[in-house]
Amino acid sequence: MTQDIVILAAGKGSRMKSKLPKVLHAVGGMSMVRRVLTVASGLPNAALHLIVGHQGEQVAEKCQDFSANIVWQNDPQGTGDALKRVAPHLQENGSTLTLYGDVPLIQADTLEKMTALSTPNTLVLLTVTLDNPTGYGRIVRNADNQVTAIVEQKDANDEELKIQEVNTGILLAPNAHLQTWLAALTNNNAQQEYYLTDIIAMAARDGVEIVTVQPGSEAEVSGVNDRLQLAALERVLQRQQADDLMRNGATLLDPSRIDVRGELQTGQDVVIDINCVFEGKVVIGDDVEIGPNCHLNNCTIGNGTIIKSNTLIDDSQVGENCDIGPFARLRPGTQLANKAKIGNFVETKRAIIGTGSKVNHLSYIGDTQMGAGVNVGAGTITCNYDGVNKHQTQVADNVFIGSNSALVAPVNIAAGATIAAGSTITKNVTENQLAVGRARQTTKDNWPKPTKK
Amino acid sequence: MTQDIVILAAGKGSRMKSKLPKVLHAVGGMSMVRRVLTVASGLPNAALHLIVGHQGEQVAEKCQDFSANIVWQNDPQGTGDALKRVAPHLQENGSTLTLYGDVPLIQADTLEKMTALSTPNTLVLLTVTLDNPTGYGRIVRNADNQVTAIVEQKDANDEELKIQEVNTGILLAPNAHLQTWLAALTNNNAQQEYYLTDIIAMAARDGVEIVTVQPGSEAEVSGVNDRLQLAALERVLQRQQADDLMRNGATLLDPSRIDVRGELQTGQDVVIDINCVFEGKVVIGDDVEIGPNCHLNNCTIGNGTIIKSNTLIDDSQVGENCDIGPFARLRPGTQLANKAKIGNFVETKRAIIGTGSKVNHLSYIGDTQMGAGVNVGAGTITCNYDGVNKHQTQVADNVFIGSNSALVAPVNIAAGATIAAGSTITKNVTENQLAVGRARQTTKDNWPKPTKK
Amino acid sequence: MTQDIVILAAGKGSRMKSKLPKVLHAVGGMSMVRRVLTVASGLPNAALHLIVGHQGEQVAEKCQDFSANIVWQNDPQGTGDALKRVAPHLQENGSTLTLYGDVPLIQADTLEKMTALSTPNTLVLLTVTLDNPTGYGRIVRNADNQVTAIVEQKDANDEELKIQEVNTGILLAPNAHLQTWLAALTNNNAQQEYYLTDIIAMAARDGVEIVTVQPGSEAEVSGVNDRLQLAALERVLQRQQADDLMRNGATLLDPSRIDVRGELQTGQDVVIDINCVFEGKVVIGDDVEIGPNCHLNNCTIGNGTIIKSNTLIDDSQVGENCDIGPFARLRPGTQLANKAKIGNFVETKRAIIGTGSKVNHLSYIGDTQMGAGVNVGAGTITCNYDGVNKHQTQVADNVFIGSNSALVAPVNIAAGATIAAGSTITKNVTENQLAVGRARQTTKDNWPKPTKK
Repeated sequence: MTQDIVILAAGKGSRMKSKLPKVLHAVGGMSMVRRVLTVASGLPNAALHLIVGHQGEQVAEKCQDFSANIVWQNDPQGTGDALKRVAPHLQENGSTLTLYGDVPLIQADTLEKMTALSTPNTLVLLTVTLDNPTGYGRIVRNADNQVTAIVEQKDANDEELKIQEVNTGILLAPNAHLQTWLAALTNNNAQQEYYLTDIIAMAARDGVEIVTVQPGSEAEVSGVNDRLQLAALERVLQRQQADDLMRNGATLLDPSRIDVRGELQTGQDVVIDINCVFEGKVVIGDDVEIGPNCHLNNCTIGNGTIIKSNTLIDDSQVGENCDIGPFARLRPGTQLANKAKIGNFVETKRAIIGTGSKVNHLSYIGDTQMGAGVNVGAGTITCNYDGVNKHQTQVADNVFIGSNSALVAPVNIAAGATIAAGSTITKNVTENQLAVGRARQTTKDNWPKPTKK
Repeated sequence: MTQDIVILAAGKGSRMKSKLPKVLHAVGGMSMVRRVLTVASGLPNAALHLIVGHQGEQVAEKCQDFSANIVWQNDPQGTGDALKRVAPHLQENGSTLTLYGDVPLIQADTLEKMTALSTPNTLVLLTVTLDNPTGYGRIVRNADNQVTAIVEQKDANDEELKIQEVNTGILLAPNAHLQTWLAALTNNNAQQEYYLTDIIAMAARDGVEIVTVQPGSEAEVSGVNDRLQLAALERVLQRQQADDLMRNGATLLDPSRIDVRGELQTGQDVVIDINCVFEGKVVIGDDVEIGPNCHLNNCTIGNGTIIKSNTLIDDSQVGENCDIGPFARLRPGTQLANKAKIGNFVETKRAIIGTGSKVNHLSYIGDTQMGAGVNVGAGTITCNYDGVNKHQTQVADNVFIGSNSALVAPVNIAAGATIAAGSTITKNVTENQLAVGRARQTTKDNWPKPTKK
Repeated sequence: MTQDIVILAAGKGSRMKSKLPKVLHAVGGMSMVRRVLTVASGLPNAALHLIVGHQGEQVAEKCQDFSANIVWQNDPQGTGDALKRVAPHLQENGSTLTLYGDVPLIQADTLEKMTALSTPNTLVLLTVTLDNPTGYGRIVRNADNQVTAIVEQKDANDEELKIQEVNTGILLAPNAHLQTWLAALTNNNAQQEYYLTDIIAMAARDGVEIVTVQPGSEAEVSGVNDRLQLAALERVLQRQQADDLMRNGATLLDPSRIDVRGELQTGQDVVIDINCVFEGKVVIGDDVEIGPNCHLNNCTIGNGTIIKSNTLIDDSQVGENCDIGPFARLRPGTQLANKAKIGNFVETKRAIIGTGSKVNHLSYIGDTQMGAGVNVGAGTITCNYDGVNKHQTQVADNVFIGSNSALVAPVNIAAGATIAAGSTITKNVTENQLAVGRARQTTKDNWPKPTKK
């Protein structure tokens, strides 16, 4: 039997003050609704129903890889209304878990605890105990500690206001009962909305047992209504990820100054200095050191490589024992073989750099295939672009390129060749040749300095 | 009737250990005393009196645009002494608000609440309730909740020590009474100082009603005596500003890692990544993304522009849908038309860059007027300086400048021209010309590599 | 009489998940065990005993400059076992202070308070009062407030569990008694370990007075078992250091975003912006301003120098009133005379730069001796490396080097000379000469633009 999971994602989120639907705002580099879908789709036999409304096409499109059943909730009238619309799509037996696209940090193990308690005659409610429960629906229990009702803030008496256990809105209900309860929901209230919470009283009335589960942390059930709350959850998530990295054996110089917006795998004895940002999938080998202010996106870094401060690496592969930065920028398609060295103010793009080759200063190496043991002097530029087309530069093993050279692609520099400093190279150079493309030095004596105009 | 406002700014601030007078130290990029003057001068009909003493000329000079009445307090003998010196300058009727140049975060709405309560027979006192009131003067109230006295820490009995409401020093007194009270102040105490606080007891004795107002936050009434307190208020202010930006619809990846030291306006759906610093007046359009570690000073950024990490922009205008950075530096006088692109390790200064033109890598473009659709190759330098004078470079539309070129100003490159890579251009180039200024390539076979010396 | 000090450093630290022994992990740039040794060796007449075990050779080697007596504890069986092994090395009289290599923030004044209380018949115990004492051994005192026992968590009754004063493990015991007590220790417990704590009960039994001292902060006695705890102590230390800098008169824009991993001395009115990192010994003069994201290692900075954002300085000397950065990198052996200027995207290495000389943009200056009043144009490269050897460049006073020039070392540019922009200079230039090493500009009309392939 499948597990119906309904994710409410129809809200406008006016307080976000955004053109983007609220649930598409990201936490940890992934939109909130995708975070919920990811956890939900990991539950056994999940049958996903995504309730969309405001800018629903955009939400549905951004989530289409989850193959959720898209249910429209135009003119939304509350959480109960959302469930009423999905009701025809729920299977006859089984149960339905209700989640929220703006409650992004819900964890799989919490939901698994809920599903483990599910029976045809049990309603499983996720509750949380808060230091300050003001504003939330209080969980009222009888002398046997059984939940009997949820009382909203405005309806609570003094005794009930002291209750710190509150409703999270996340619940798991048996479908047979749920259909009855949803049909019975009314909107006789100030907002004229249908509240899903009202089914709790119906369950109690119908003798359905109400059991509760608590999440691992308050953040799991925190919703996002504005960008302050979005930022708050971003920080919670980042800190959790940082703690996980440290538990796994990485040294973080400051766990409150690291941002992982994707998946970061670290080997043993990795050291990550302050203010680094990781995006996409980043795989880092053993004994790698990453200096301050580095930004890595979709890349792999081999064992023993040192990445100095202010280095940016994007869609690239870096070998072992490389030495990169500071102020290096490896753009997409860069591949460094072992022991390669990329120094300060160097940009690479679609560049394959061979073992032990060095590009140490102020260079642009693009659309280039470079062998091993090459030394590229400071200020070297591969002229790969003629204004419309890109061209390839080939540099074979053990070439020495003098500083301030320009290699006008397409061009081939064969093994062991030497390029004189300051040369512009437009024609191929054969093995062990010296190529010079610069003018002879001339002088004039007693040259007058310019004067102030 | 004007509102007399006295701002005490005579103190030395020894614990700052600074050559600079304490009140000139900055919070959020503005000196503390200017923050107070700014708020004070915004009150209706404000008549400002600035009490200066230690390095008073410097304080007065740095605040002269506020046109405050400068009153000297040399050999300062307490807050009461300060008020005694300003007394002859106060108008006969009306009231006087006392503020402090080292209490920089006081807010206008708090002061407006105070002035709204002012009458010729009312003293308005700003008090604050602290978790830990140790060291502060306690607000003693009678059974009718009327303030009867302020009791200093050392004079307080056990019951009084438990009072958490304390004096902030900020008060608003009717001038007629104030003159009498100031005249009656004595310095019969250990420090031989005149305490403004002593007027509270006089007011109570004289049957003047004492009403209290509380600030929005404790930080509003926090004073600065050393650089730890300065840093603490800096953080409070930065967090408040960050929250305001988020409430207004900007996404901040980390609200504890943004610094605004001036005025930052953001359009809709602006995203600001970690560790950005904003100074002066910065106006950012809609849908702008700003990467980590950017530093923007006095600039406007058009809608849809992307500013990548580690970009510095200073006194510049950036159009719409531009693409800037990473590691770009736009220096004063840079103007980017829409869709312009400035890439890594590029510096611009007094440079007008036309629509869609690109300076992508390792270049210096200074004193330059560039048209639309220009492509500037990597390593291009405008040689704008001859050691004493700066000269202009003109580059018309659709020019292609090959990599590693030097344009020796003054020089004109007409529309559609092409500069060959590696050229030094000293003479004007006409429309659609190719200009080459480089040597022909020559080679020598079997060139011996240098050997280790 | 010497003071025996035993430092336990034999543990494996499995939860660190590291190849490095736990005590060699660093806090504030110094290994934990070296921090403890540094404090211990500063006590009067300290006789250091370092207990090593897991990877003990490595620990001993990294600490050998302290000349501690190395005592091996292979197959470690608890803290008592460690002391039993060192027992034969302790002097007959005197006392022994026991410290821990993984409790790195212990302060000298705390230990001095302990040693001041030491007598032949006194055991001095360092205890700390915790908000949450769960898990720690409680300090049990009798009606006279005398310590009578330490009760471990698992053995404590309800009353004892409420005790918030706990054992830190750090103690100072008279050697005569200590020898007796150590000999009497047994390992009749679940772990079959010898617990040093057991000597407390023996001391009480023997009528030895037990006196207690408390540390200045909890962090002083916090141990490190995993990288989360390591990071937590790193933050405590960094904040303490930041506070010290501010008390000493430096302005820190954000005291939670500065990292000092060595020794930082600051003059008066130094301003340090966010995210700066200091390593090694850094000495900064008066009125120095350091922008965001700078990284300084082993350097001295003269009065009045401005270091703009994203500047890296390593093993260099900087004079007064220099102007450096942003995006500058001063590598080892750089010496800037007063008023020198190093601008953006400039790298220097083994470079002596004379008074007022300027290297403002996109340059590499290595192995260079430069006089005063030199102007180095953008994109200038010293070609100091021929693939195997480094060569010197000499630039005398008042030389003007045009942009995009390459100076092929070894080469001498005499005083007052001018290098034309775009030149490659391979031969010496004499005084006031103009040297040109570039081709003449030629043009071709109606040059066809490349077309898309």
